[in-house]
Amino acid sequence: MEAGSDDIQALIGLLARLPGLGPRSARRIVLQLIRKRGGQMAQLATLIERVAMNSRECLSCGNITDRDICAICTDPARANGEICVVQDVADLWALERGGAFRGRYHVLGGTLSALDEIGPEDLRIPELIDRITRDSMTEVILALNATVEGQTTAHYIADALDQTAVTITGLAQGVPIGGELDYLDDGTISAALRARRRI
Amino acid sequence: MEAGSDDIQALIGLLARLPGLGPRSARRIVLQLIRKRGGQMAQLATLIERVAMNSRECLSCGNITDRDICAICTDPARANGEICVVQDVADLWALERGGAFRGRYHVLGGTLSALDEIGPEDLRIPELIDRITRDSMTEVILALNATVEGQTTAHYIADALDQTAVTITGLAQGVPIGGELDYLDDGTISAALRARRRI
Repeated sequence: MEAGSDDIQALIGLLARLPGLGPRSARRIVLQLIRKRGGQMAQLATLIERVAMNSRECLSCGNITDRDICAICTDPARANGEICVVQDVADLWALERGGAFRGRYHVLGGTLSALDEIGPEDLRIPELIDRITRDSMTEVILALNATVEGQTTAHYIADALDQTAVTITGLAQGVPIGGELDYLDDGTISAALRARRRI
Repeated sequence: MEAGSDDIQALIGLLARLPGLGPRSARRIVLQLIRKRGGQMAQLATLIERVAMNSRECLSCGNITDRDICAICTDPARANGEICVVQDVADLWALERGGAFRGRYHVLGGTLSALDEIGPEDLRIPELIDRITRDSMTEVILALNATVEGQTTAHYIADALDQTAVTITGLAQGVPIGGELDYLDDGTISAALRARRRI
Protein backbone atom coordinates (compact mmCIF):
# COMPACT_ATOMS: atom_id res chain seq x y z
CA MET A 1 0.00 0.00 0.00
CA GLU A 2 1.18 3.47 -0.85
CA ALA A 3 0.46 5.98 1.91
CA GLY A 4 -1.28 9.32 1.40
CA SER A 5 -4.73 10.11 0.06
CA ASP A 6 -5.88 9.21 -3.46
CA ASP A 7 -5.50 12.83 -4.55
CA ILE A 8 -1.91 12.87 -3.32
CA GLN A 9 -1.17 9.64 -5.17
CA ALA A 10 -2.79 11.00 -8.34
CA LEU A 11 -0.76 14.22 -8.07
CA ILE A 12 2.47 12.25 -7.58
CA GLY A 13 1.59 10.09 -10.59
CA LEU A 14 0.95 13.13 -12.76
CA LEU A 15 4.15 14.91 -11.70
CA ALA A 16 6.23 11.74 -12.12
CA ARG A 17 5.37 11.71 -15.84
CA LEU A 18 6.79 15.19 -16.43
CA PRO A 19 10.21 15.39 -18.15
CA GLY A 20 13.11 14.99 -15.74
CA LEU A 21 10.92 13.80 -12.87
CA GLY A 22 10.33 10.28 -11.54
CA PRO A 23 8.28 8.82 -8.71
CA ARG A 24 10.88 9.72 -6.07
CA SER A 25 11.32 13.36 -7.06
CA ALA A 26 7.54 13.71 -7.55
CA ARG A 27 7.00 12.47 -3.96
CA ARG A 28 9.57 14.94 -2.64
CA ILE A 29 7.90 17.80 -4.51
CA VAL A 30 4.43 16.94 -3.22
CA LEU A 31 5.67 16.66 0.38
CA GLN A 32 7.44 20.01 0.07
CA LEU A 33 4.31 21.60 -1.39
CA ILE A 34 2.17 20.24 1.44
CA ARG A 35 4.68 21.34 4.05
CA LYS A 36 4.91 24.91 2.72
CA ARG A 37 1.36 25.10 1.56
CA GLY A 38 0.89 28.68 2.78
CA GLY A 39 0.43 30.30 -0.58
CA GLN A 40 2.86 28.26 -2.65
CA MET A 41 0.40 25.57 -3.71
CA ALA A 42 -2.48 27.95 -4.37
CA GLN A 43 -0.14 30.17 -6.40
CA LEU A 44 1.11 27.17 -8.38
CA ALA A 45 -2.43 25.95 -9.10
CA THR A 46 -3.52 29.43 -10.23
CA LEU A 47 -0.49 29.93 -12.46
CA ILE A 48 -0.85 26.51 -14.11
CA GLU A 49 -4.51 27.26 -14.78
CA ARG A 50 -3.76 30.71 -16.21
CA VAL A 51 -0.91 29.45 -18.39
CA ALA A 52 -3.07 26.56 -19.64
CA MET A 53 -5.88 28.96 -20.51
CA ASN A 54 -3.80 31.70 -22.16
CA SER A 55 -0.83 30.03 -23.83
CA ARG A 56 -0.93 29.36 -27.53
CA GLU A 57 1.39 29.31 -30.52
CA CYS A 58 2.20 32.58 -32.22
CA LEU A 59 0.40 32.42 -35.58
CA SER A 60 3.48 33.80 -37.30
CA CYS A 61 6.55 32.14 -35.76
CA GLY A 62 5.27 29.32 -33.51
CA ASN A 63 6.68 30.82 -30.29
CA ILE A 64 4.52 30.42 -27.18
CA THR A 65 2.59 33.55 -26.36
CA ASP A 66 -0.61 34.81 -24.77
CA ARG A 67 -1.55 36.81 -27.87
CA ASP A 68 -2.19 35.91 -31.52
CA ILE A 69 1.21 37.26 -32.58
CA CYS A 70 4.08 37.08 -30.08
CA ALA A 71 6.10 39.97 -28.62
CA ILE A 72 9.16 39.11 -30.73
CA CYS A 73 7.21 39.14 -34.02
CA THR A 74 5.62 42.52 -33.19
CA ASP A 75 8.74 44.20 -31.72
CA PRO A 76 9.51 47.13 -34.09
CA ALA A 77 13.11 47.31 -32.74
CA ARG A 78 14.03 43.94 -34.23
CA ALA A 79 15.50 43.47 -37.71
CA ASN A 80 12.99 42.18 -40.27
CA GLY A 81 15.48 40.82 -42.76
CA GLU A 82 17.00 38.05 -40.58
CA ILE A 83 15.11 34.96 -39.53
CA CYS A 84 16.47 32.32 -37.20
CA VAL A 85 15.02 28.81 -37.58
CA VAL A 86 14.92 26.67 -34.45
CA GLN A 87 13.57 23.22 -33.67
CA ASP A 88 11.69 24.00 -30.44
CA VAL A 89 10.48 26.90 -28.32
CA ALA A 90 13.13 25.88 -25.74
CA ASP A 91 15.82 26.66 -28.35
CA LEU A 92 14.25 30.07 -29.04
CA TRP A 93 14.33 30.82 -25.31
CA ALA A 94 17.97 29.69 -25.13
CA LEU A 95 18.94 32.04 -27.98
CA GLU A 96 17.01 34.91 -26.36
CA ARG A 97 18.90 34.35 -23.10
CA GLY A 98 22.12 34.75 -25.07
CA GLY A 99 20.73 38.02 -26.42
CA ALA A 100 23.01 38.01 -29.48
CA PHE A 101 20.25 37.75 -32.09
CA ARG A 102 17.94 40.70 -32.80
CA GLY A 103 15.97 39.44 -35.79
CA ARG A 104 12.87 37.23 -36.06
CA TYR A 105 12.40 33.54 -35.30
CA HIS A 106 10.63 30.57 -36.79
CA VAL A 107 9.92 27.51 -34.65
CA LEU A 108 9.66 24.28 -36.66
CA GLY A 109 8.21 22.19 -33.83
CA GLY A 110 10.45 19.19 -34.46
CA THR A 111 12.77 17.65 -37.04
CA LEU A 112 12.13 15.65 -40.18
CA SER A 113 12.00 11.94 -39.51
CA ALA A 114 11.19 9.22 -42.05
CA LEU A 115 10.93 6.72 -39.19
CA ASP A 116 8.30 8.70 -37.28
CA GLU A 117 6.63 9.80 -40.54
CA ILE A 118 7.27 13.48 -39.85
CA GLY A 119 7.36 15.33 -43.17
CA PRO A 120 7.85 19.02 -44.05
CA GLU A 121 4.08 19.76 -43.71
CA ASP A 122 4.16 18.58 -40.07
CA LEU A 123 6.93 21.06 -39.26
CA ARG A 124 5.80 24.54 -40.33
CA ILE A 125 8.34 24.39 -43.17
CA PRO A 126 5.83 25.61 -45.80
CA GLU A 127 5.02 28.57 -43.49
CA LEU A 128 8.76 29.30 -43.20
CA ILE A 129 9.22 29.40 -46.96
CA ASP A 130 6.11 31.60 -47.25
CA ARG A 131 7.49 34.05 -44.67
CA ILE A 132 10.92 34.24 -46.29
CA THR A 133 9.41 34.99 -49.71
CA ARG A 134 6.65 37.34 -48.50
CA ASP A 135 8.78 39.41 -46.06
CA SER A 136 11.80 39.41 -48.45
CA MET A 137 14.19 38.09 -45.82
CA THR A 138 17.87 38.51 -46.61
CA GLU A 139 19.33 35.87 -44.28
CA VAL A 140 18.04 32.57 -42.85
CA ILE A 141 20.05 31.25 -39.90
CA LEU A 142 19.42 27.54 -39.47
CA ALA A 143 20.03 27.22 -35.70
CA LEU A 144 19.19 23.53 -35.54
CA ASN A 145 20.74 20.93 -33.25
CA ALA A 146 24.05 19.46 -34.39
CA THR A 147 22.45 16.02 -34.52
CA VAL A 148 21.72 13.83 -37.54
CA GLU A 149 18.01 14.80 -37.46
CA GLY A 150 18.76 18.50 -37.01
CA GLN A 151 21.26 18.56 -39.86
CA THR A 152 18.98 16.53 -42.16
CA THR A 153 16.24 19.10 -41.56
CA ALA A 154 18.71 21.95 -42.17
CA HIS A 155 19.74 20.43 -45.50
CA TYR A 156 16.13 19.96 -46.54
CA ILE A 157 15.34 23.63 -45.82
CA ALA A 158 18.52 24.81 -47.58
CA ASP A 159 17.53 22.75 -50.64
CA ALA A 160 13.99 24.14 -50.61
CA LEU A 161 15.36 27.71 -50.55
CA ASP A 162 17.91 27.03 -53.29
CA GLN A 163 16.03 29.05 -55.95
CA THR A 164 15.54 32.13 -53.73
CA ALA A 165 17.98 34.99 -53.19
CA VAL A 166 18.16 34.52 -49.42
CA THR A 167 21.55 33.85 -47.76
CA ILE A 168 21.47 30.59 -45.78
CA THR A 169 23.77 30.27 -42.76
CA GLY A 170 24.22 27.85 -39.88
CA LEU A 171 25.66 28.16 -36.37
CA ALA A 172 29.45 27.86 -36.17
CA GLN A 173 30.75 24.57 -34.82
CA GLY A 174 33.75 24.49 -32.51
CA VAL A 175 35.01 24.49 -28.95
CA PRO A 176 32.41 25.82 -26.44
CA ILE A 177 33.43 28.89 -24.40
CA GLY A 178 35.29 27.58 -21.34
CA GLY A 179 35.53 24.14 -22.94
CA GLU A 180 38.57 21.98 -22.28
CA LEU A 181 39.90 20.04 -25.26
CA ASP A 182 40.53 16.94 -23.18
CA TYR A 183 36.81 16.67 -22.37
CA LEU A 184 35.51 17.31 -25.91
CA ASP A 185 34.48 14.58 -28.30
CA ASP A 186 36.67 13.94 -31.34
CA GLY A 187 34.04 15.18 -33.77
CA THR A 188 33.95 18.63 -32.15
CA ILE A 189 37.73 18.92 -32.05
CA SER A 190 37.99 17.96 -35.74
CA ALA A 191 35.25 20.44 -36.66
CA ALA A 192 36.95 23.21 -34.67
CA LEU A 193 40.28 22.43 -36.35
CA ARG A 194 38.78 22.44 -39.85
CA ALA A 195 37.07 25.79 -39.14
CA ARG A 196 40.19 27.33 -37.56
CA ARG A 197 40.56 31.12 -37.78
CA ARG A 198 43.49 33.53 -37.87
CA ILE A 199 43.82 35.36 -34.53
CA MET B 1 15.19 39.18 -22.24
CA GLU B 2 13.60 35.88 -21.32
CA ALA B 3 10.96 34.79 -23.79
CA GLY B 4 7.41 33.74 -22.87
CA SER B 5 4.67 35.63 -21.05
CA ASP B 6 4.99 36.90 -17.48
CA ASP B 7 2.77 34.08 -16.23
CA ILE B 8 5.01 31.51 -17.91
CA GLN B 9 8.10 33.10 -16.35
CA ALA B 10 6.44 33.15 -12.92
CA LEU B 11 5.43 29.50 -13.27
CA ILE B 12 8.99 28.53 -14.28
CA GLY B 13 10.36 30.49 -11.30
CA LEU B 14 7.98 28.76 -8.89
CA LEU B 15 8.73 25.29 -10.26
CA ALA B 16 12.49 25.93 -10.26
CA ARG B 17 12.40 26.36 -6.48
CA LEU B 18 10.93 22.90 -5.89
CA PRO B 19 13.31 20.20 -4.62
CA GLY B 20 15.26 18.51 -7.39
CA LEU B 21 14.28 21.07 -10.02
CA GLY B 22 16.25 23.99 -11.44
CA PRO B 23 15.56 26.65 -14.07
CA ARG B 24 16.33 24.30 -16.96
CA SER B 25 14.13 21.40 -15.84
CA ALA B 26 11.37 23.87 -14.87
CA ARG B 27 11.44 25.29 -18.40
CA ARG B 28 11.23 21.82 -19.91
CA ILE B 29 8.27 20.95 -17.68
CA VAL B 30 6.37 24.13 -18.57
CA LEU B 31 6.96 23.61 -22.30
CA GLN B 32 5.77 20.02 -22.03
CA LEU B 33 2.69 21.10 -20.09
CA ILE B 34 1.85 23.73 -22.70
CA ARG B 35 2.43 21.28 -25.54
CA LYS B 36 0.15 18.60 -24.06
CA ARG B 37 -2.24 20.99 -22.48
CA GLY B 38 -5.29 18.92 -23.45
CA GLY B 39 -6.36 17.97 -19.96
CA GLN B 40 -2.96 17.52 -18.31
CA MET B 41 -2.56 21.10 -17.09
CA ALA B 42 -6.15 21.49 -15.95
CA GLN B 43 -5.91 18.17 -14.12
CA LEU B 44 -2.64 19.21 -12.48
CA ALA B 45 -4.07 22.57 -11.37
CA THR B 46 -7.19 20.91 -9.94
CA LEU B 47 -5.22 18.25 -8.08
CA ILE B 48 -2.77 20.76 -6.58
CA GLU B 49 -5.71 22.86 -5.42
CA ARG B 50 -7.51 19.86 -3.91
CA VAL B 51 -4.39 18.55 -2.17
CA ALA B 52 -3.62 22.04 -0.82
CA MET B 53 -7.16 22.36 0.53
CA ASN B 54 -7.51 18.88 2.06
CA SER B 55 -4.06 17.80 3.23
CA ARG B 56 -3.19 18.12 6.88
CA GLU B 57 -1.21 16.28 9.53
CA CYS B 58 -2.83 13.33 11.28
CA LEU B 59 -3.51 14.55 14.82
CA SER B 60 -2.21 11.28 16.21
CA CYS B 61 0.87 10.27 14.19
CA GLY B 62 1.79 13.26 12.00
CA ASN B 63 1.26 11.41 8.69
CA ILE B 64 -0.31 13.45 5.88
CA THR B 65 -4.00 12.74 5.47
CA ASP B 66 -7.28 14.27 4.37
CA ARG B 67 -8.98 13.40 7.67
CA ASP B 68 -8.31 14.26 11.32
CA ILE B 69 -6.84 10.81 11.99
CA CYS B 70 -5.08 9.02 9.12
CA ALA B 71 -5.99 5.66 7.55
CA ILE B 72 -3.03 3.91 9.20
CA CYS B 73 -3.97 5.09 12.70
CA THR B 74 -7.60 3.97 12.26
CA ASP B 75 -6.88 0.66 10.47
CA PRO B 76 -8.19 -2.07 12.84
CA ALA B 77 -6.04 -4.70 11.08
CA ARG B 78 -2.78 -3.14 12.25
CA ALA B 79 -1.02 -4.11 15.48
CA ASN B 80 -1.48 -1.58 18.29
CA GLY B 81 1.52 -2.58 20.39
CA GLU B 82 4.27 -1.63 17.88
CA ILE B 83 5.11 1.92 16.94
CA CYS B 84 7.66 2.89 14.33
CA VAL B 85 9.26 6.32 14.74
CA VAL B 86 10.36 8.07 11.53
CA GLN B 87 11.86 11.46 10.76
CA ASP B 88 9.61 12.48 7.87
CA VAL B 89 6.45 11.49 6.06
CA ALA B 90 8.66 10.44 3.11
CA ASP B 91 10.23 7.80 5.39
CA LEU B 92 6.79 6.54 6.44
CA TRP B 93 5.83 6.20 2.77
CA ALA B 94 9.10 4.35 2.06
CA LEU B 95 8.40 1.86 4.89
CA GLU B 96 4.82 1.38 3.67
CA ARG B 97 6.09 0.61 0.16
CA GLY B 98 8.24 -2.13 1.71
CA GLY B 99 5.09 -3.46 3.38
CA ALA B 100 7.02 -5.29 6.12
CA PHE B 101 5.66 -3.28 9.06
CA ARG B 102 2.05 -3.66 10.16
CA GLY B 103 1.99 -1.56 13.34
CA ARG B 104 1.51 2.19 13.91
CA TYR B 105 3.76 5.12 13.02
CA HIS B 106 4.92 8.34 14.62
CA VAL B 107 6.39 11.10 12.42
CA LEU B 108 8.81 13.38 14.28
CA GLY B 109 9.00 16.04 11.58
CA GLY B 110 12.77 16.44 11.79
CA THR B 111 15.77 15.66 13.97
CA LEU B 112 17.17 17.30 17.09
CA SER B 113 19.70 19.98 16.26
CA ALA B 114 21.42 22.26 18.75
CA LEU B 115 22.71 24.35 15.85
CA ASP B 116 19.26 25.03 14.39
CA GLU B 117 17.74 25.27 17.90
CA ILE B 118 15.41 22.33 17.28
CA GLY B 119 14.53 20.78 20.64
CA PRO B 120 12.28 17.84 21.63
CA GLU B 121 9.17 20.08 21.81
CA ASP B 122 9.62 21.04 18.16
CA LEU B 123 9.61 17.40 17.10
CA ARG B 124 6.44 15.77 18.46
CA ILE B 125 8.63 13.83 20.92
CA PRO B 126 6.36 14.65 23.93
CA GLU B 127 3.39 13.35 21.87
CA LEU B 128 5.36 10.18 21.14
CA ILE B 129 6.03 9.52 24.82
CA ASP B 130 2.36 10.23 25.58
CA ARG B 131 1.21 7.73 22.97
CA ILE B 132 3.61 5.02 24.14
CA THR B 133 2.43 5.37 27.75
CA ARG B 134 -1.27 5.85 27.00
CA ASP B 135 -1.62 3.05 24.42
CA SER B 136 0.70 0.72 26.40
CA MET B 137 2.97 0.05 23.43
CA THR B 138 5.27 -2.94 23.76
CA GLU B 139 7.89 -2.04 21.12
CA VAL B 140 9.24 1.22 19.73
CA ILE B 141 11.20 0.85 16.49
CA LEU B 142 13.41 3.90 15.95
CA ALA B 143 13.59 3.91 12.13
CA LEU B 144 15.67 7.07 11.93
CA ASN B 145 18.32 7.88 9.33
CA ALA B 146 21.78 6.41 9.95
CA THR B 147 23.20 9.95 10.13
CA VAL B 148 24.67 11.78 13.13
CA GLU B 149 21.44 13.80 13.58
CA GLY B 150 19.21 10.75 13.20
CA GLN B 151 21.22 8.73 15.69
CA THR B 152 21.42 11.61 18.19
CA THR B 153 17.64 11.87 18.06
CA ALA B 154 17.30 8.09 18.47
CA HIS B 155 19.51 8.17 21.57
CA TYR B 156 17.54 11.04 23.05
CA ILE B 157 14.25 9.14 22.62
CA ALA B 158 15.76 5.93 24.01
CA ASP B 159 16.98 7.86 27.07
CA ALA B 160 13.56 9.47 27.57
CA LEU B 161 11.89 6.04 27.48
CA ASP B 162 14.44 4.46 29.82
CA GLN B 163 12.04 4.29 32.77
CA THR B 164 9.18 2.67 30.79
CA ALA B 165 8.69 -1.03 30.09
CA VAL B 166 8.70 -0.61 26.32
CA THR B 167 11.28 -2.49 24.20
CA ILE B 168 13.36 -0.09 22.10
CA THR B 169 14.78 -1.32 18.79
CA GLY B 170 16.49 0.21 15.77
CA LEU B 171 16.81 -0.85 12.13
CA ALA B 172 19.57 -3.37 11.40
CA GLN B 173 22.65 -1.94 9.74
CA GLY B 174 24.49 -3.92 7.09
CA VAL B 175 24.90 -4.62 3.41
CA PRO B 176 21.88 -3.50 1.30
CA ILE B 177 20.12 -6.23 -0.70
CA GLY B 178 21.93 -6.49 -4.02
CA GLY B 179 24.79 -4.41 -2.63
CA GLU B 180 28.34 -5.09 -3.77
CA LEU B 181 31.01 -4.89 -1.06
CA ASP B 182 33.43 -3.11 -3.35
CA TYR B 183 31.02 -0.18 -3.71
CA LEU B 184 30.11 0.14 -0.01
CA ASP B 185 31.68 2.62 2.37
CA ASP B 186 34.00 1.28 5.08
CA GLY B 187 31.58 2.19 7.89
CA THR B 188 28.81 0.01 6.44
CA ILE B 189 31.17 -2.93 5.88
CA SER B 190 32.47 -2.69 9.46
CA ALA B 191 28.93 -2.47 10.85
CA ALA B 192 27.84 -5.49 8.78
CA LEU B 193 30.86 -7.45 9.98
CA ARG B 194 30.25 -6.61 13.64
CA ALA B 195 26.59 -7.61 13.32
CA ARG B 196 27.39 -10.83 11.41
CA ARG B 197 24.93 -13.70 11.78
CA ARG B 198 25.18 -17.48 11.62
CA ILE B 199 23.65 -18.81 8.35
